[in-house]
Amino acid sequence: MKFEVMRDSLLEGLNDVMKAVSSKTTIPILTGLKLEVSKSGLYITGSDSDITIQTYIPTERNGEQIIKVTEVGSIVLQARVFNEIVRKLPTNEVEIEVTNQFQTHIRSGKSEFSLIGLDASEYPLLPQIEEDRQFFIASDLLKSIIKETVFAVSTSESRPVLTGVNWQVKEGELHCVATDSHRLAKRKTALKDLPEEEYSVVIPGKSLNELNKILEETSSEVAIVMTQQQILFKTGDVLFYSRLLEGNYPDTSRLIPNEYKTTILVNGKSLLQAIDRASLLAREERNNVVRFSTIGQGFVEVSSNSPEIGNVEEQIQAESIDGEDLKLSFSAKYMMDALKAIDGQDVKIMFSGAMRPFVLKSVHDDSILQLILPVRTY
Amino acid sequence: MKFEVMRDSLLEGLNDVMKAVSSKTTIPILTGLKLEVSKSGLYITGSDSDITIQTYIPTERNGEQIIKVTEVGSIVLQARVFNEIVRKLPTNEVEIEVTNQFQTHIRSGKSEFSLIGLDASEYPLLPQIEEDRQFFIASDLLKSIIKETVFAVSTSESRPVLTGVNWQVKEGELHCVATDSHRLAKRKTALKDLPEEEYSVVIPGKSLNELNKILEETSSEVAIVMTQQQILFKTGDVLFYSRLLEGNYPDTSRLIPNEYKTTILVNGKSLLQAIDRASLLAREERNNVVRFSTIGQGFVEVSSNSPEIGNVEEQIQAESIDGEDLKLSFSAKYMMDALKAIDGQDVKIMFSGAMRPFVLKSVHDDSILQLILPVRTY
Repeated sequence: MKFEVMRDSLLEGLNDVMKAVSSKTTIPILTGLKLEVSKSGLYITGSDSDITIQTYIPTERNGEQIIKVTEVGSIVLQARVFNEIVRKLPTNEVEIEVTNQFQTHIRSGKSEFSLIGLDASEYPLLPQIEEDRQFFIASDLLKSIIKETVFAVSTSESRPVLTGVNWQVKEGELHCVATDSHRLAKRKTALKDLPEEEYSVVIPGKSLNELNKILEETSSEVAIVMTQQQILFKTGDVLFYSRLLEGNYPDTSRLIPNEYKTTILVNGKSLLQAIDRASLLAREERNNVVRFSTIGQGFVEVSSNSPEIGNVEEQIQAESIDGEDLKLSFSAKYMMDALKAIDGQDVKIMFSGAMRPFVLKSVHDDSILQLILPVRTY
Repeated sequence: MKFEVMRDSLLEGLNDVMKAVSSKTTIPILTGLKLEVSKSGLYITGSDSDITIQTYIPTERNGEQIIKVTEVGSIVLQARVFNEIVRKLPTNEVEIEVTNQFQTHIRSGKSEFSLIGLDASEYPLLPQIEEDRQFFIASDLLKSIIKETVFAVSTSESRPVLTGVNWQVKEGELHCVATDSHRLAKRKTALKDLPEEEYSVVIPGKSLNELNKILEETSSEVAIVMTQQQILFKTGDVLFYSRLLEGNYPDTSRLIPNEYKTTILVNGKSLLQAIDRASLLAREERNNVVRFSTIGQGFVEVSSNSPEIGNVEEQIQAESIDGEDLKLSFSAKYMMDALKAIDGQDVKIMFSGAMRPFVLKSVHDDSILQLILPVRTY
């Protein structure tokens, strides 16, 4: 194997692929990256066996030559070291050559590295995926969907299936739901050309977080292919594979109340800031809980206290308060997460009593629903 | 005590004072900040007993009213909580009022905090300093002096005096020296109006690092007052006190060689980058050591190897190489620190043999000297 490559293009590719590489892997070859150069371009693959990312750098892009291939071939190089070396090379021209015994030479300017490589044929193959159930989402929309749901997954391994986000394709819509059993985030998206067959997968939250870092804030389409064990996201130059979680995702629809006793319309940003301040004094041993109550004249009050530090009271003018008076307590963190997902818009909060789950929605947009279980303190 | 203050001015003052507050203090009242408001302004004091910072916010600045005092007085408030509260208050107008039992009310917009304060009379007094031995340094010059020396202090407590920087006033110059006994950084600065009497103090490296964060990159003068136990730095609105280290600082002048066998002139930036790359493969168990040698035709070579990962060779064209051929090894970290202190300029490196300390200076500026002890590997 021998080729020349522009350092900045190589770095771009490495940036994406490195997100799949974990230093904690128990499979030694996965501490490496696979480089495979053909006449058409360079493929770089990284994996932690849950997530696999492959990026492609073509020999030519927009008429500019990026890679000059002298001899095709493949090699596995230590990911961390190779990435740091490329980052620090002195010139934009980089030559990579594999000689005998997987010895790999990296040359740039007057600098020459010789790395001990590994046999690329020992690197795991990409998951086999048949592309019959494929659909498309715009990259920026996919990022929103991830951000509005993934924060609500469980961080506890006691019910592994809850550490993922449930994606269901049904009735021409994609339904995404995450819950840690104390709160729930749900997002519906109508999409064209969805497969007609209903299906349901659970994608690990960690995979979605890494995917979100790779996706661009553009409207370019991302192709999505789901199988029984794997999901594949395809952008222009990147293939992102994630293992799916096994087990049945619980039916969450019965958690959402049908009737409400109090409905409050309020500016999401003001409420978020008030809760952020109140949480400064919320006692840590009580899971950051704040109190919330209607106090008449269209005001709600957020308050919290800490016997050792002091207390805080915040009054917020609501747009409207309909229904019964209300007094309840909830996790400031859950409430702030939910308000951030709704993203500064006016929110409608619907309560069914002090110990029943309550629901937050954007006033302008019915596709996002956030649900939180109150905490018993009153 | 009751006053109104502009939040942004209060935050600026808190930013400085918080640098003295440590969560690890064993003296409970030092987890707090002392606020003292008089008719002329607000003094805020923070301390970890080694460093004490007092900042002053005048009632009026450039014709703008910043503080409106209703009742003078003082209080001690939990530093971390108070700082976070002020950071998150909803409006720029903040009212602070102490009622009975040191109960302190912080009001801004529709938000009201009540904090449990402490009696300000229990807060330690500022160190007593007589201002007879005072001199001045421009703020940006003082920052340079700190950056060029403080990195070389020892991080080990086995010889506590080496964790500080030795400042000596003699012959109209300020001499600053730091060493951890493996390398040394020295900086001379000619100053006007220095006290005639010679004296020598040792300032903790940590204090200088914190001071550096507070100093601005401007030419405004900083007044410096030294006593037996304390040093005081005075800027426009900030008093920065530091405890001095006890014990005699070693005489380092005899460490610096008088004769040299090899002198190399080289671009500091190119050498720094080459060593940075070579250190990527420098074996960690050997303290990040790289090899350095002259290889003829005006080139030097920097190299390192790791049996498990590979090796690297870097060639650098020197401006000139005079004297004997050379082969030695040194800590990549020490060399990089020294080159950064000289700051990208052309450097002159003077060697007295493979096992004798070598010296780095800027070609353009004789005031900075860096000295490094080689490591035996050849």
